Amino acid sequence: MPTSAEITAFLEKEFPQTKCMVESVGEQSALVRHPIGFDELRPGGTVSGPALMAVADVGLYVAILGEIGMKPFVATTNLNINFLRMPTAEKDIMGDCKLIKVGRTLIVGEASLYSDGNPTKPVAHIVGTYYVDWEAKPNE
Amino acid sequence: MPTSAEITAFLEKEFPQTKCMVESVGEQSALVRHPIGFDELRPGGTVSGPALMAVADVGLYVAILGEIGMKPFVATTNLNINFLRMPTAEKDIMGDCKLIKVGRTLIVGEASLYSDGNPTKPVAHIVGTYYVDWEAKPNE
Amino acid sequence: MPTSAEITAFLEKEFPQTKCMVESVGEQSALVRHPIGFDELRPGGTVSGPALMAVADVGLYVAILGEIGMKPFVATTNLNINFLRMPTAEKDIMGDCKLIKVGRTLIVGEASLYSDGNPTKPVAHIVGTYYVDWEAKPNE
Amino acid sequence: MPTSAEITAFLEKEFPQTKCMVESVGEQSALVRHPIGFDELRPGGTVSGPALMAVADVGLYVAILGEIGMKPFVATTNLNINFLRMPTAEKDIMGDCKLIKVGRTLIVGEASLYSDGNPTKPVAHIVGTYYVDWEAKPNE
Repeated sequence: MPTSAEITAFLEKEFPQTKCMVESVGEQSALVRHPIGFDELRPGGTVSGPALMAVADVGLYVAILGEIGMKPFVATTNLNINFLRMPTAEKDIMGDCKLIKVGRTLIVGEASLYSDGNPTKPVAHIVGTYYVDWEAKPNE
Repeated sequence: MPTSAEITAFLEKEFPQTKCMVESVGEQSALVRHPIGFDELRPGGTVSGPALMAVADVGLYVAILGEIGMKPFVATTNLNINFLRMPTAEKDIMGDCKLIKVGRTLIVGEASLYSDGNPTKPVAHIVGTYYVDWEAKPNE
Repeated sequence: MPTSAEITAFLEKEFPQTKCMVESVGEQSALVRHPIGFDELRPGGTVSGPALMAVADVGLYVAILGEIGMKPFVATTNLNINFLRMPTAEKDIMGDCKLIKVGRTLIVGEASLYSDGNPTKPVAHIVGTYYVDWEAKPNE
Repeated sequence: MPTSAEITAFLEKEFPQTKCMVESVGEQSALVRHPIGFDELRPGGTVSGPALMAVADVGLYVAILGEIGMKPFVATTNLNINFLRMPTAEKDIMGDCKLIKVGRTLIVGEASLYSDGNPTKPVAHIVGTYYVDWEAKPNE
């Protein structure tokens, strides 16, 4: 299985748009970090919903890569996000992601997002479903 | 109720981060457009999930502003997104948004997203719930 | 493709637990009806959430059978339900179901539920994803 | 706060339709059990989706009653359910429910459902949002 450093290198090459950083990759899990700047803000000085969703989506993707390796094609099919608290704009958003079910075709995971240093007060909770196409060629 | 131009001015002032443009605002509905560039892409030359979510979230917000006016505080509480087809990176993403239920506290709406010119082949479907805090001060 | 009567016969044989009745089957769509009795009630004299969900789930299943035929194995993978209004216990619940995307492996549909006679005041909105296993044997 | 026995008595009186039994009530959490019989089955000899949803919905309701007491009016506004594995019809379904966020108006919780004795192989995962109307009269 790929290491955290290999997944980071893969993300930087394949997905340069994301500012999301891999903190750690564990067994069917990942912890990611996203800095907050102007692009991530919305009215009221808080973090925008799509920015939060991006953290969860990348974090679950990282957990999947850590579990099944970096070759197959993986696409998000469903995301359900509940916004729980207004995150501060002053702290990075952390995404604590774990896989609930790794099936042959569908993988389901959940993510708890929180402002760095405050893991017991999650700002959002996400459940996502990913489709794995084992016959697709890798993105090169 | 505010006009489409007033909502556009409000968005530009309050939410300069979004590239989403208001095409029209109707009865409990809105049509928005989002250009696609480097920032919205993801591996495979398609539009990223969070970029799609942002179109739906802004579009539903616009439909709500058109319905209840621009004063109250409105926050997304839940979004559920199903990704249906890979959108092309060559076309703007359009968001056709309508409100399903306008309650005293909670408003529920749905959005169908498609690549410009191809409304019968939606790329994503979103249902969102918004909380209206009527006692909050407007964002100024 | 199967007729409405054939789908009704299939449901009665395979799924005798459901009280849901097929009203009509159209192109990628179905209308179903569910009577409301003691079993479907919950505190407050309204219809329980699971009873509503069952109407949507059977209705979307019927729409899928009408589209792809009755042979393949179809399983629900995700359901998202928003409860919009308290339904009366005095009227049947109707489920107006349509498919949004019919893919090779995944089918996504939505359902609008309402108390009979009041289609413009939906009581719940559901989006469901179904997995089709084309290689499975039919339930016999 | 109410005891497990008080919540059981409340459920039996107010909600005689449910077969769901309270196993325990903890801090912002509950464990419930649902026997499986003819009514809960669906084609293929497995447990129906609505039956699973009912376990989660009652379990989260029990966790909420344990947290805020039995007086206020509580209504489900959103449920998102992912079906993970086919449950056996031979075992009770257990619902391990915990609250993620207890707000003034909205409460969000999640439930992991499994066949009795097999908690590490969940059959479904549910996230639900509940609206609390503090001014409503209790159901008497």
